[in-house]
Amino acid sequence: MTPDRTPDFDFLHQLADLAGETVMPLFRKAIEIENKLEGGFDPVTDADKQAELKMRGFIQAQFPGHGILGEEFEGKDLDADGLWVLDPIDGTRAFIAGLPTWGTLIGYRHQGGQSLGMMSQPFTKERFFGDGKKAFYQGPDGEHSVSSRKCSALGEATLFTTAPDIFAPDELAAFRKVEQKVRLSRYGVDCYAYCMLAIGMVDLVIEAGLKPVDIAPLIPLIEGAGGVVTNWQGNSAFDGGQVVATGDPDLHQSVLDLLSGRS
Amino acid sequence: MTPDRTPDFDFLHQLADLAGETVMPLFRKAIEIENKLEGGFDPVTDADKQAELKMRGFIQAQFPGHGILGEEFEGKDLDADGLWVLDPIDGTRAFIAGLPTWGTLIGYRHQGGQSLGMMSQPFTKERFFGDGKKAFYQGPDGEHSVSSRKCSALGEATLFTTAPDIFAPDELAAFRKVEQKVRLSRYGVDCYAYCMLAIGMVDLVIEAGLKPVDIAPLIPLIEGAGGVVTNWQGNSAFDGGQVVATGDPDLHQSVLDLLSGRS
Repeated sequence: MTPDRTPDFDFLHQLADLAGETVMPLFRKAIEIENKLEGGFDPVTDADKQAELKMRGFIQAQFPGHGILGEEFEGKDLDADGLWVLDPIDGTRAFIAGLPTWGTLIGYRHQGGQSLGMMSQPFTKERFFGDGKKAFYQGPDGEHSVSSRKCSALGEATLFTTAPDIFAPDELAAFRKVEQKVRLSRYGVDCYAYCMLAIGMVDLVIEAGLKPVDIAPLIPLIEGAGGVVTNWQGNSAFDGGQVVATGDPDLHQSVLDLLSGRS
Repeated sequence: MTPDRTPDFDFLHQLADLAGETVMPLFRKAIEIENKLEGGFDPVTDADKQAELKMRGFIQAQFPGHGILGEEFEGKDLDADGLWVLDPIDGTRAFIAGLPTWGTLIGYRHQGGQSLGMMSQPFTKERFFGDGKKAFYQGPDGEHSVSSRKCSALGEATLFTTAPDIFAPDELAAFRKVEQKVRLSRYGVDCYAYCMLAIGMVDLVIEAGLKPVDIAPLIPLIEGAGGVVTNWQGNSAFDGGQVVATGDPDLHQSVLDLLSGRS
């Protein structure tokens, strides 16, 4: 480790390695599931917590002054110039059901400057990452740069969302207005949907009720691939909530208009 | 090839190899999508058709007297003693969106006797297969036998279905009665859901509007893993339609009762 190292893709890969090593031995194994939210089923696994602790320790050893916002534990120095955003298992329900559509999300944002983000899927050995200007895919067939798809017509678009039940009633009504105009609408797959958008296979992702850790690490990937991601009001998606991402910037405004009732 | 060869797992693996070689070069590539059903979006890809032709040719060369029921082309000798059931890409929407949750389905049924079934996912290099008595998983970590999970309480069960829109209104009402009692309900993933049931990660799959090719090849896998799969009336699921699969036989009747309105 060098004292003047700055966060880069190599460091994100190291964090993803750590998370993968921790999580994979528990994937498709019988695991204890505890209820995080009373009244709801928000599964947290040992794997999730262990992976976050390992990534936090690794970051703190290298960048002791940086802040860390994680899925499982309390935030640290959230006002620091450098902020890490970590979700060890985004898509815990997919993880618990054995599906390969969850991912480890790792994001970094330097105040007013550099930002990096990565999704790592250790079962399929895929990584999707970007810095807001470029985006890359690393998988069984090697590494290459990726870009989102040009699709400005809603009638030609493929739309993903996690599930209809993530929306409040008024949100669902707005979502349905978009959904009924697209060519193909599909449910499921959490962070994987944004990655498919970044590689040009999906045109539109609309969600609500997201936490910052669910989306912040994906922003540099989506934007690096040429896409646009904002909240439903067109502002930064960093804080989560209602999120809309499009592969084609020309599609974005028309979707915002539909969601807001302006068209 | 030996003239007296009988269908076995090796032959199914050979068919799955053929399909995988044909389909994978087109996965996550720009492909021509044609609409199969007027008014609906039922994508058929070149990959789908090419893979079925190759599997058909391979079967006919080895077993000229056998029948073949395929997704893409007309049935052949459907009254023959040996019947093959082929779906080169089950989950074409997932395929088109770049998701690894589609699969090649290959089934064989000998009149009143032996039956074999396999799901092959060539991107993740996973195969799930069974003969009604035993079931196996082959993946990156090797091959091993698998069994479904004991979960007789609906309140503890994980439920999968492809999407709410596969159900007619009365079917959806019946489905919702089950859905509101389970611990976790998720959408998406087509054939992959039945495979997760066979390896003990998912307890319950409920669908409707299935074609025989969507489900017949999965029956020997589900039953071989210790699960039960029937239509909503409790009869054979071979012909598709309304299908319900449970990992635990003790869960099956209570789900049938709910779906039929008997409880």
